Amino acid sequence: MKRIKLAYIGGGSKEWAHVFMNDLALSEGITGEIALYDIDLLAAKRNQEIGDLLCGLPEAKTKWEYRVYETIEPALRGADFVVMSILPATFKEMASDVHEPEAYGIYQTVGDTTGPGGILRSMRTVPIYEEFARKIKEFCPDAWVLNFTNPMNLCVRTLHDVFPEIKAFGCCHEVFHAQNFLCDVLEEATGIKATRREITTDVAGINHFTWITKASYQNMDLFPLLDEFILKYGETGHNERGEVDSFLENPFHSANKVKMDLYRRYGALGAAGDRHLVEFMRPDWYLRDAEMIKRFKFARTSVAYRIEKRERRIRELEDIRRGRIKPELKGSDEEAVAMIKALLGFGKLVTNVNLPNVGQMPGYPLGAIVETNAVFSDGKVTPVVTGELPKPVKNMVLTHVYNLETLFEGIKKRDLDLIFTAFLHDPLCLKLSIEEAKELFRKMMENTKSYLEPNFSIN
Amino acid sequence: MKRIKLAYIGGGSKEWAHVFMNDLALSEGITGEIALYDIDLLAAKRNQEIGDLLCGLPEAKTKWEYRVYETIEPALRGADFVVMSILPATFKEMASDVHEPEAYGIYQTVGDTTGPGGILRSMRTVPIYEEFARKIKEFCPDAWVLNFTNPMNLCVRTLHDVFPEIKAFGCCHEVFHAQNFLCDVLEEATGIKATRREITTDVAGINHFTWITKASYQNMDLFPLLDEFILKYGETGHNERGEVDSFLENPFHSANKVKMDLYRRYGALGAAGDRHLVEFMRPDWYLRDAEMIKRFKFARTSVAYRIEKRERRIRELEDIRRGRIKPELKGSDEEAVAMIKALLGFGKLVTNVNLPNVGQMPGYPLGAIVETNAVFSDGKVTPVVTGELPKPVKNMVLTHVYNLETLFEGIKKRDLDLIFTAFLHDPLCLKLSIEEAKELFRKMMENTKSYLEPNFSIN
Amino acid sequence: MKRIKLAYIGGGSKEWAHVFMNDLALSEGITGEIALYDIDLLAAKRNQEIGDLLCGLPEAKTKWEYRVYETIEPALRGADFVVMSILPATFKEMASDVHEPEAYGIYQTVGDTTGPGGILRSMRTVPIYEEFARKIKEFCPDAWVLNFTNPMNLCVRTLHDVFPEIKAFGCCHEVFHAQNFLCDVLEEATGIKATRREITTDVAGINHFTWITKASYQNMDLFPLLDEFILKYGETGHNERGEVDSFLENPFHSANKVKMDLYRRYGALGAAGDRHLVEFMRPDWYLRDAEMIKRFKFARTSVAYRIEKRERRIRELEDIRRGRIKPELKGSDEEAVAMIKALLGFGKLVTNVNLPNVGQMPGYPLGAIVETNAVFSDGKVTPVVTGELPKPVKNMVLTHVYNLETLFEGIKKRDLDLIFTAFLHDPLCLKLSIEEAKELFRKMMENTKSYLEPNFSIN
Amino acid sequence: MKRIKLAYIGGGSKEWAHVFMNDLALSEGITGEIALYDIDLLAAKRNQEIGDLLCGLPEAKTKWEYRVYETIEPALRGADFVVMSILPATFKEMASDVHEPEAYGIYQTVGDTTGPGGILRSMRTVPIYEEFARKIKEFCPDAWVLNFTNPMNLCVRTLHDVFPEIKAFGCCHEVFHAQNFLCDVLEEATGIKATRREITTDVAGINHFTWITKASYQNMDLFPLLDEFILKYGETGHNERGEVDSFLENPFHSANKVKMDLYRRYGALGAAGDRHLVEFMRPDWYLRDAEMIKRFKFARTSVAYRIEKRERRIRELEDIRRGRIKPELKGSDEEAVAMIKALLGFGKLVTNVNLPNVGQMPGYPLGAIVETNAVFSDGKVTPVVTGELPKPVKNMVLTHVYNLETLFEGIKKRDLDLIFTAFLHDPLCLKLSIEEAKELFRKMMENTKSYLEPNFSIN
Repeated sequence: MKRIKLAYIGGGSKEWAHVFMNDLALSEGITGEIALYDIDLLAAKRNQEIGDLLCGLPEAKTKWEYRVYETIEPALRGADFVVMSILPATFKEMASDVHEPEAYGIYQTVGDTTGPGGILRSMRTVPIYEEFARKIKEFCPDAWVLNFTNPMNLCVRTLHDVFPEIKAFGCCHEVFHAQNFLCDVLEEATGIKATRREITTDVAGINHFTWITKASYQNMDLFPLLDEFILKYGETGHNERGEVDSFLENPFHSANKVKMDLYRRYGALGAAGDRHLVEFMRPDWYLRDAEMIKRFKFARTSVAYRIEKRERRIRELEDIRRGRIKPELKGSDEEAVAMIKALLGFGKLVTNVNLPNVGQMPGYPLGAIVETNAVFSDGKVTPVVTGELPKPVKNMVLTHVYNLETLFEGIKKRDLDLIFTAFLHDPLCLKLSIEEAKELFRKMMENTKSYLEPNFSIN
Repeated sequence: MKRIKLAYIGGGSKEWAHVFMNDLALSEGITGEIALYDIDLLAAKRNQEIGDLLCGLPEAKTKWEYRVYETIEPALRGADFVVMSILPATFKEMASDVHEPEAYGIYQTVGDTTGPGGILRSMRTVPIYEEFARKIKEFCPDAWVLNFTNPMNLCVRTLHDVFPEIKAFGCCHEVFHAQNFLCDVLEEATGIKATRREITTDVAGINHFTWITKASYQNMDLFPLLDEFILKYGETGHNERGEVDSFLENPFHSANKVKMDLYRRYGALGAAGDRHLVEFMRPDWYLRDAEMIKRFKFARTSVAYRIEKRERRIRELEDIRRGRIKPELKGSDEEAVAMIKALLGFGKLVTNVNLPNVGQMPGYPLGAIVETNAVFSDGKVTPVVTGELPKPVKNMVLTHVYNLETLFEGIKKRDLDLIFTAFLHDPLCLKLSIEEAKELFRKMMENTKSYLEPNFSIN
Repeated sequence: MKRIKLAYIGGGSKEWAHVFMNDLALSEGITGEIALYDIDLLAAKRNQEIGDLLCGLPEAKTKWEYRVYETIEPALRGADFVVMSILPATFKEMASDVHEPEAYGIYQTVGDTTGPGGILRSMRTVPIYEEFARKIKEFCPDAWVLNFTNPMNLCVRTLHDVFPEIKAFGCCHEVFHAQNFLCDVLEEATGIKATRREITTDVAGINHFTWITKASYQNMDLFPLLDEFILKYGETGHNERGEVDSFLENPFHSANKVKMDLYRRYGALGAAGDRHLVEFMRPDWYLRDAEMIKRFKFARTSVAYRIEKRERRIRELEDIRRGRIKPELKGSDEEAVAMIKALLGFGKLVTNVNLPNVGQMPGYPLGAIVETNAVFSDGKVTPVVTGELPKPVKNMVLTHVYNLETLFEGIKKRDLDLIFTAFLHDPLCLKLSIEEAKELFRKMMENTKSYLEPNFSIN
Repeated sequence: MKRIKLAYIGGGSKEWAHVFMNDLALSEGITGEIALYDIDLLAAKRNQEIGDLLCGLPEAKTKWEYRVYETIEPALRGADFVVMSILPATFKEMASDVHEPEAYGIYQTVGDTTGPGGILRSMRTVPIYEEFARKIKEFCPDAWVLNFTNPMNLCVRTLHDVFPEIKAFGCCHEVFHAQNFLCDVLEEATGIKATRREITTDVAGINHFTWITKASYQNMDLFPLLDEFILKYGETGHNERGEVDSFLENPFHSANKVKMDLYRRYGALGAAGDRHLVEFMRPDWYLRDAEMIKRFKFARTSVAYRIEKRERRIRELEDIRRGRIKPELKGSDEEAVAMIKALLGFGKLVTNVNLPNVGQMPGYPLGAIVETNAVFSDGKVTPVVTGELPKPVKNMVLTHVYNLETLFEGIKKRDLDLIFTAFLHDPLCLKLSIEEAKELFRKMMENTKSYLEPNFSIN
């Protein structure tokens, strides 16, 4: 039984923390302390209670010691692992990020990664992460750092920029959905029911705009099966998580029509939910208006929906905490605990992860954050070399990579002109005139100013 | 006196040939044969007569022997130099290239390089250049080939792809205008009247979307002077070729307001006419509508204007030929003869030129055609290493480089789907839905089908 | 149970085939045909008999159908896997390779990879592999090809050069010995008895001159333990396979004194037997003379020893075949069957392998064959990105990489001058004057001329 | 008339300063102050007197104001140009550098760039240059810095490492000799008498181990003429500076037999004197012993010869100063003044120069100092992209580049182990055992210890 200390920054999380606490309770061979830190202290305490509850269930394989810290320093001190999953600012700012651009005909489905929303969110988040990086350098320089916060790319970029020796990477489950979709493709063609971990995919790109260039099950190439599948479902759509129209109820779902359309055009499979993919491309391809969005069968995740969902969730957690609902231990499809175990020497794991480019994507700028497969084992994460993306896809990915580099340089140097240039160049802004872009940018800054550094204020 | 044979493909040209014939007549130290070939035989013969006329003038420094060939092979055989300057198809096809997209809100100022017009023109031109390359390989493999035809980039790309040992490069005078503009900047600040050849500029990019990252006169950096100049003329504009509003009469002119706007934003100077620069960027930045175009003080060069200009020119040539106008020898600002002389050993020349990237633009794909400075001397053209473009500019240039590579692959393989993908990805098409893009592409193919290869026909 | 056809080129092998046949008999989940082909038909038949015998043992987990083919084509036709393990020419030629240079003060310990011996062996082997590649392209283009023949590097280089789509890689167990050595290091420091597969090593370099830049067991870094280990054993030596002086009896053994000396100097661990490592470096560092060789506690593997060993082995095989010795099934430390199973979808495997550089060794020429870790799974082999080698080690590796590229180009073009240049530049030849190098090269060609192509004959 | 201030560090130089002062006196269009600084104050004063004398001659085109400074700071303050040409330490240390290794069979012909001598000289020089770089940063950060001191490579490397914005490059005339040699080749074949400036050469490599991959006169390729020339003179030799055997008297001369031998083997022409080239290659190719050196017709430049030459020179200078010899103004073949004038805007110059690799040698490490052609004009030096060196030559150049990087890192970090590793890896040391190398290194450190930093002392 290996003992570890794991610091959880954003430990009051209402969603992801719970998935993780379940997986932790079910992990064999490891135990130790989970140090919860959150600016919402009550939320952290609630999670502590629930964590204790989960560990006490008879199915639990291991007993973790949950502790809540009021400041970040003691939470980090001596940690072997740091998990980071925060919401920068509040749903009010997120509402501005996502919905303000609608007045300019810019419809965002998520708004936390790219587009005007992603850029404003980055302006709030990078300075926080600069501080996190300095704290980690001081209090647990040898810790492995798993980031789950969005914007994933610039969070990981900031950590490595401030503390180059940091052992940090970013984890995202979007690729897993594409793998589940491929399981359905396999089953449709052969009747074989595989799990996503039995599917091997070559993955390259950036977070939420990742692409699968090869997929196989055993020694079977899945792309020919996918060609067949699309002939059948390309128009009607297919949802790997349920009914094809469930996106009407649940705006996290989609019918994968965009994914299939892209595959037909480029020969590579977008490896994120359709609602993420569309935000990286020309707005008039999939996001022109409500009619087009409906035709392609995905939904925009409104902040109102998120607020409602959170409230439902808080009630549910309260019910669990008070014993009104009996918690049930359930392993997830996530890889965080598997990664931790592989790093501790419990066997090798190959999975997709966000890391600085050290050559895993040849032809892309070194140091930029990319998402590819990597081997996790014995205290090491080693990325694998990716194959070539189709030229037009490479072109779209590079556009974002360089725009992210521009944005990052702008935020790092607190150079508002450069940040605005990145804003202006974002593909979702491409129908704005330069003046309109300035106007929208100013409004979004104004809306969120209480969470922007003073030196970010508008001149 | 060195004797050479120079084959002129497109030797019936009504504009550029005359500039060149003037420069040839004024060149010292070289003489020989000018072999004119054109599918318009009469035009070639007319140029022969005028060429002879020019060489007979008392100011002429050298006497060239002009010959007209009815087929290309004997024109090329044994040539030391080949100059290529053709119009692929007719003004009818050009009218479709430039104006058909207007129905979709796409306003092109030139339409021969990028955008929907550039793509259709490329589809007509690349197959012709494949044939030219094969002929050169057969009849004059050691010749230096100077290309002036647009689309410059894919013409040069095709020549090198079909015949990798070819000594071909592409020449364009757009950078010269930017240098003349810089002369005005220098004079404004210091009173010094310099010529553009006394200005040194670091040049990087692709044809018609080239950028100056440094400019100096003697040991004086011109960019600080440019900053001052823009404070003064940024709003009103400035035309290095005459009155600031002359673009209203002459659609080849502009007031450089775009150039100055870009410089302010990026810190590098676009080194082509504003009407070229705008076509490479977001349409809503400078090309949204007539009002915006007028505000930025440049003009769209309509094909009607070109037709009228040509007719005027033909009349003028006829007048010269018949002795009604006395021709006057006048050296131009062009570099073609200077390049030829440098290659023959008459001193070194450093100028901008289109060549495959062999490292002159580090970080850009090798083999793609780029425009940078190069040293011409003694049978060699050697590009110089360029400095870094500002990140957002690099991003825009790379977008075009990869889209050109996609387009070239599509045309080379006669893969209409891939060509359409390049069309869809062109920045000027970015407000089209996928269906609209298909519709426009089909129309433009239909309009120009008599000049498209049968295997390019629409399925 | 998956059925495969595996063609074994060099199927009369007396050593490696037997290791492999044992592993095959013990492999679960796969079965099928083993197609033996060898120019020594009798040897192949003998192996067939022994293969059948092994599969008949009660411990066997699977039953393979061994078949002998008199020609290569039907052996290859339809194969899923091809294993290649041949001896190019005979021990007579090998004796010239290894021992002729001794007259010039060049002492080779192995003589099959680098040095004068490696070069002459390459000249015999590359043409054979050109033919193999063409046959594979014709008869089983989709087969996975596992090469075990030396010179490993140029065998794999040739296969990919002749048939670029080939799914070929090279396997070598030398790294495994270094891993076993690290197991001893771990045990010495901690008492933990691990197997080499529980050790994770970052591997980079070329075959037989591979380097470990990081090694860990669980989350423990092994290099600090190695520092300690060398303080203790650096002078006396340590043999991971037995007594420290066993190299006196068995010239395949060593005391790892070279390996430890190199680690002390460069901070990276040579990941091949000392007898291989020394051949890639300056001869006067470890190979100056018998005294120095003895002091560093390794041995030269003479061809006389190999001949004697083979004879002993033939008698032993005869005893098995005639039932005088009862064969015993014993799994090996090799990875060949594990690789095959991973490719067929039986789980992932990360191991070192020789492949063309597609970016796994950034800064080294693309296309050159390098040895690094790779992930094997579901019909794919994907190399991982390696870390930086220490500068002086990188320098030595690059020297060999470029000299191998020179040698390969020379053999491919049948350009004897270029081959000689590679010979002259080989580090083991570095004490020869140009004339002496020519003389030795001519002698070695003369000695082996019956196995050299006529176009390789001496002028 | 442009006025400049030029600081001359090492302004007491007895040789190069005089060449330079002649060229300065003959330069039109520029004038100003020459600030002489030297730790040998008397020598600087002597040069001042001679400089004044030269400027007073009737043939002088310009009058410079020579001033002597006792400290470096005022000499540098406000300088537009800095020329650096020093002798690190004295001939006593140089004697150790050059001759101590002879006891180990290592014969150096120059001993100031590579080999054991070059390494020890680097250990003395780099710390001095670190200080120079800091002074330039402080007192004249915008100055152009022309370095002439050896070891050229690490002097320029140090300047750029300490002060990355420095405008420094290194100048060497060795390539000019190769160009003069090519003039003889041209004349032999065609009777044309050209000067080296009329020859165009493509140059790539590192200082004193530079290679010409193409050479032309007008549009004539000189390499076919060189093939002919070598058939005739390859054995007997040819000296572009006089009698073929003049090397017997003047150890700076040679018969170019090495150069021709290398060209025959590699197809590229070594562009430095034979005595430099041989030091970069295997010692047993050209430097094995006196007999071999004599056979290849070059000489070792002993320090005794240098001392004698200097004494002769001092007497000669004294004679000039005292009016016993009448000085005569004579323009040299050097480029320093031409470079300065081109930087000031007096026309373009293309010449070879040592600069950090920013892409001019693709495939070589960025930041390493390389020698290639560059365009000088209007306040800029822009390197041209070089062609590929033949693989075996590239291999030799890369070996030195990486060993220089190792050496530089060692000196920068004052890491004696790493410096020794570079020493051990130097090709001239390759016949030493590791112990012998240590012994020689220690002796050479001991011999020169009064000029080594204390932290470089032997432990």
